[in-house]
Amino acid sequence: MGVVVQNIERADPAVIDGLAACGVATVHEAQGRKGLLASYMRPIYAGARIAGSAVTISAPPGDNWMVHVAIEQLKAGDILLLAPTSPCEDGYFGDLLATSAQARGCRGLVIDAGVRDVRDLTEMRFPVWSKAIFAQGTVKNTLGSVNVPVVCAGAAVEPGDVIVADDDGVCVVKRAEAADVLEKARAREANEADKRDKLASGVLGLDMYKMRERLEAEGLRYI
Amino acid sequence: MGVVVQNIERADPAVIDGLAACGVATVHEAQGRKGLLASYMRPIYAGARIAGSAVTISAPPGDNWMVHVAIEQLKAGDILLLAPTSPCEDGYFGDLLATSAQARGCRGLVIDAGVRDVRDLTEMRFPVWSKAIFAQGTVKNTLGSVNVPVVCAGAAVEPGDVIVADDDGVCVVKRAEAADVLEKARAREANEADKRDKLASGVLGLDMYKMRERLEAEGLRYI
Amino acid sequence: MGVVVQNIERADPAVIDGLAACGVATVHEAQGRKGLLASYMRPIYAGARIAGSAVTISAPPGDNWMVHVAIEQLKAGDILLLAPTSPCEDGYFGDLLATSAQARGCRGLVIDAGVRDVRDLTEMRFPVWSKAIFAQGTVKNTLGSVNVPVVCAGAAVEPGDVIVADDDGVCVVKRAEAADVLEKARAREANEADKRDKLASGVLGLDMYKMRERLEAEGLRYI
Amino acid sequence: MGVVVQNIERADPAVIDGLAACGVATVHEAQGRKGLLASYMRPIYAGARIAGSAVTISAPPGDNWMVHVAIEQLKAGDILLLAPTSPCEDGYFGDLLATSAQARGCRGLVIDAGVRDVRDLTEMRFPVWSKAIFAQGTVKNTLGSVNVPVVCAGAAVEPGDVIVADDDGVCVVKRAEAADVLEKARAREANEADKRDKLASGVLGLDMYKMRERLEAEGLRYI
Amino acid sequence: MGVVVQNIERADPAVIDGLAACGVATVHEAQGRKGLLASYMRPIYAGARIAGSAVTISAPPGDNWMVHVAIEQLKAGDILLLAPTSPCEDGYFGDLLATSAQARGCRGLVIDAGVRDVRDLTEMRFPVWSKAIFAQGTVKNTLGSVNVPVVCAGAAVEPGDVIVADDDGVCVVKRAEAADVLEKARAREANEADKRDKLASGVLGLDMYKMRERLEAEGLRYI
Amino acid sequence: MGVVVQNIERADPAVIDGLAACGVATVHEAQGRKGLLASYMRPIYAGARIAGSAVTISAPPGDNWMVHVAIEQLKAGDILLLAPTSPCEDGYFGDLLATSAQARGCRGLVIDAGVRDVRDLTEMRFPVWSKAIFAQGTVKNTLGSVNVPVVCAGAAVEPGDVIVADDDGVCVVKRAEAADVLEKARAREANEADKRDKLASGVLGLDMYKMRERLEAEGLRYI
Repeated sequence: MGVVVQNIERADPAVIDGLAACGVATVHEAQGRKGLLASYMRPIYAGARIAGSAVTISAPPGDNWMVHVAIEQLKAGDILLLAPTSPCEDGYFGDLLATSAQARGCRGLVIDAGVRDVRDLTEMRFPVWSKAIFAQGTVKNTLGSVNVPVVCAGAAVEPGDVIVADDDGVCVVKRAEAADVLEKARAREANEADKRDKLASGVLGLDMYKMRERLEAEGLRYI
Repeated sequence: MGVVVQNIERADPAVIDGLAACGVATVHEAQGRKGLLASYMRPIYAGARIAGSAVTISAPPGDNWMVHVAIEQLKAGDILLLAPTSPCEDGYFGDLLATSAQARGCRGLVIDAGVRDVRDLTEMRFPVWSKAIFAQGTVKNTLGSVNVPVVCAGAAVEPGDVIVADDDGVCVVKRAEAADVLEKARAREANEADKRDKLASGVLGLDMYKMRERLEAEGLRYI
Repeated sequence: MGVVVQNIERADPAVIDGLAACGVATVHEAQGRKGLLASYMRPIYAGARIAGSAVTISAPPGDNWMVHVAIEQLKAGDILLLAPTSPCEDGYFGDLLATSAQARGCRGLVIDAGVRDVRDLTEMRFPVWSKAIFAQGTVKNTLGSVNVPVVCAGAAVEPGDVIVADDDGVCVVKRAEAADVLEKARAREANEADKRDKLASGVLGLDMYKMRERLEAEGLRYI
Repeated sequence: MGVVVQNIERADPAVIDGLAACGVATVHEAQGRKGLLASYMRPIYAGARIAGSAVTISAPPGDNWMVHVAIEQLKAGDILLLAPTSPCEDGYFGDLLATSAQARGCRGLVIDAGVRDVRDLTEMRFPVWSKAIFAQGTVKNTLGSVNVPVVCAGAAVEPGDVIVADDDGVCVVKRAEAADVLEKARAREANEADKRDKLASGVLGLDMYKMRERLEAEGLRYI
Repeated sequence: MGVVVQNIERADPAVIDGLAACGVATVHEAQGRKGLLASYMRPIYAGARIAGSAVTISAPPGDNWMVHVAIEQLKAGDILLLAPTSPCEDGYFGDLLATSAQARGCRGLVIDAGVRDVRDLTEMRFPVWSKAIFAQGTVKNTLGSVNVPVVCAGAAVEPGDVIVADDDGVCVVKRAEAADVLEKARAREANEADKRDKLASGVLGLDMYKMRERLEAEGLRYI
Repeated sequence: MGVVVQNIERADPAVIDGLAACGVATVHEAQGRKGLLASYMRPIYAGARIAGSAVTISAPPGDNWMVHVAIEQLKAGDILLLAPTSPCEDGYFGDLLATSAQARGCRGLVIDAGVRDVRDLTEMRFPVWSKAIFAQGTVKNTLGSVNVPVVCAGAAVEPGDVIVADDDGVCVVKRAEAADVLEKARAREANEADKRDKLASGVLGLDMYKMRERLEAEGLRYI
């Protein structure tokens, strides 16, 4: 503990923005159904959809000192991602920190803990995905680390990985795989538009996906 | 497992629509305080109030194959209701399935598991009550059944039962009791309008319901 | 059990309104990070921010008889606060009770249990912070008490204490400390405006709070 | 509510005892992986393995009046099964009720709520599977029903169904299916003894179940 | 925060030992069904039954510095009771602290957080009731307080209150009420022995408590 | 998915056994308070203390096909560690699989899901740490992977990492760090024996750790 890694690599900004446009469910499917954070990570307001490079924080329970340290490491387009070293729902982050992060171009926060001042954050349109909304204050007494690998809400995240977040939750894409995942995600989207039209016109998935034969082979009985 | 019941009986459409207008809390009271699904079943957006005939799905954890099978069984005015055979929060349902269900006149989904693409579903005004919002994908490998009795979020549901859902949660009304429950629910509503006016004018429930005597008999002391 | 305390002392209305304006996070910090109710207490709609004097209810599980008794004790500006004697998520409170409470000037409800008719309550702008939204009905068979000390969602509350509630949760301020806490909360706010401007202009918290030296002393390493 | 069904049918005692000997996991498999109660139902002490006919109780939250009513309905070999009408962890049952139930030949209690006096119950060897251990007392003020269909910990149970319980949890077997399930369970057991010997001798499941070909067909890669 | 109250009053040791002998369920009933800690407070091993005077600790999340401070305040027969200022499951306490507490005559620990070294604690017969067993370590960086009023697992506790703990959970008895509660608890016990004999002989609670008439009046129907 | 890595590196057997002897709490401290699995991972019986090399399994929810595949990869002294790709409590593992694993020298199972046949497993002394005990069966329809990096109960685990497990929970030690961690853990143990003697003799931690000065400097007040 007590380490700040200053120079991290980030994915191509165009790839990052492309992933944001695809959204969490599509990106998650495109990369083989991996990388999702736990379903308890919920947005503080509906409708935000972002992607960015993870600046990671490993912080002690109830101690937000490292958030200040991490903000200095932010570049425009980054997302702060905080994992406590032990489960905690305290409010590590509020409107002052959001103001500072936003001034440096930060696109949002993903935190496996609590957040507060959510009315202000909503007005500022600073999106947060968190485990809890909790006004409980924190101290600044114990070191943690910035830009080290962490496990956040059940997902392994390395600094510089791409974080995609929307109303469906949060997904992490390995930096080295981001371009490939985007390509697959876009292919899915193109494909889905066509499917959506057919389904809207009344074609059944049973027929469109040719499922009837396999269902019968498995023994499905209609009565 | 592996059964699809094709012809189920449904309640009278006028009764179903009447129950929707009354809402969950009133219907639940009118039928003797039974039939509620667990409080963890929450709507993906506020303000929807629907009722419909249950087309039930019993599905394995993490496998949404039977949803495709069930959609073929939908008639206009139905509600899909899915219970996994073991607890699961995976996202069984998204915007493509909703498009298909909506094309067949389905009014919404009640699922004791997860849902995804909630931004799209909200835009489509396809209401869902679920245990979780989770982008986690599912497979199509194991049979389940359609239109069999299930236990969904703690409530026993038979195909063709009337499902009522709004911001207060979800309630199931036995098909055979639906008309009777509607009558009682409407009586409650008529009764409530009068009570509401009195309470709004400052009359106390203590007096309106004549509670003072019984409270005194039970030993309530004012100090 | 079975006691109603009729004359409780309340804090100065101007102090109460001042605390409402400061909000939960600031008040909680100003009083030394104490008094928060558990993070599971969530508002039924976003945007409400209230403060008021607590009229407390200790009620048996699944029995809302005492709510009627408590409403008679309400004065304009009060907040109802209910703690069940054993954990319970039943819907103790709905639109009829809200109509009655609102007629007496009640500003809202804080309940470590369930609430129902939330669509109506939202339309009435009667704010509620609750553990659950649940249509489950209650009975009126067992006495509880009104205006006695309770533990609500993990916080000790005495009748007449000031309750502050907003999107961040709920905080209780001891009646005798309310004026002092307000003063400290306002000092924090004045102080925060200045900090917010600096942070928005790009000044780092590391510099504004002069943290660099202490971080170095603790052994933080930049690599 | 407020109904006691006095004459219920029970399964053949020899079948019931046969199911007890097979245990929960085997019975659950034998009947097609259905009928399990939720995993939060845990025994108060390890090592008990029982089966019996369900005498069901539907009781209000925090009110154990109906337990007294149900005890009169017990016959030797029965199991009490209690489902609250709304989620509750109160201690409905303790050593006095267990003494009374045991005097009537009751084999144990399955309760989707709390139990207390667990040290005494353990000494008496009166097994209980419960959601909680909680000393919280209950009242006797509101009617429920005895020997009506209930949903208990997520499973639908009818009076007279066979309940099987051991360290793995609790399973319900429909009365009409009990003999058939026992036959299948015994077949499984016979089959398992042989498999166990082979596996103990070092034969791999991959070979014993001939899985290698199908794994390869599905695309499993060894690297 | 940051206060240690050194001289607290304690209840009569004979009363305390009497309460231990009665156990949690009986004491809880005798004092009017109040004072229970939440059901998630579980013993690390079965069979312990203790009572003692509470030496209370209010500690920050993840920081056990105050435990060392509190141990100096222990007198023979006391029980340590720790409430974190924000929810936390870290392991505040292990075998070294238990050795130190035991050397001063401490009878056990009640902690609304985590404990570790439970195998050693079990061998030492140092009983602990906790929210979690978790090896997660803590720091010694932030002050808390000793012998101040706290809310522990939902119950308000003042220093010197009597804590009773056994396999059913934990109950707090106000110091000033302890002698009176003991008297009532013993009366209950005397009464229960007689009831137990009758119930064991086959007398029904329905008859012993003369419930039949009231059940009929409430409308219970036998069919 | 669908990959089996056959040759993984393992730590020195003497180091592994040394870590087992130190136990989870000591090992966790020795490596800087990292590597713990979540506190919900509990042993099926008390008293086991093991260490071994992780053979990891990434498995779909409700599908235990990969467990059979993984058993072939076991060497004497290994520990199976299973992480589902989505949260699941199904019983992936029972006495037949344990018989097979034990025949290959497997020391135990760590599973972020459910286990069944726990009475048999206890008799066999095959220790398991799991999220749940649940008889729910699984299928064999979908591929997963063996010996790939996983996140298990919140901790990142690579195949060949050392798993240490006892009554306090489960801890993972990176293979490359195992020897160093053992050295530090043994140093702690030597140190603790001396401390334990002093504390047992009545020396206070306040004095032994020389805390009084720093507490005073932080502002602790004795009153």
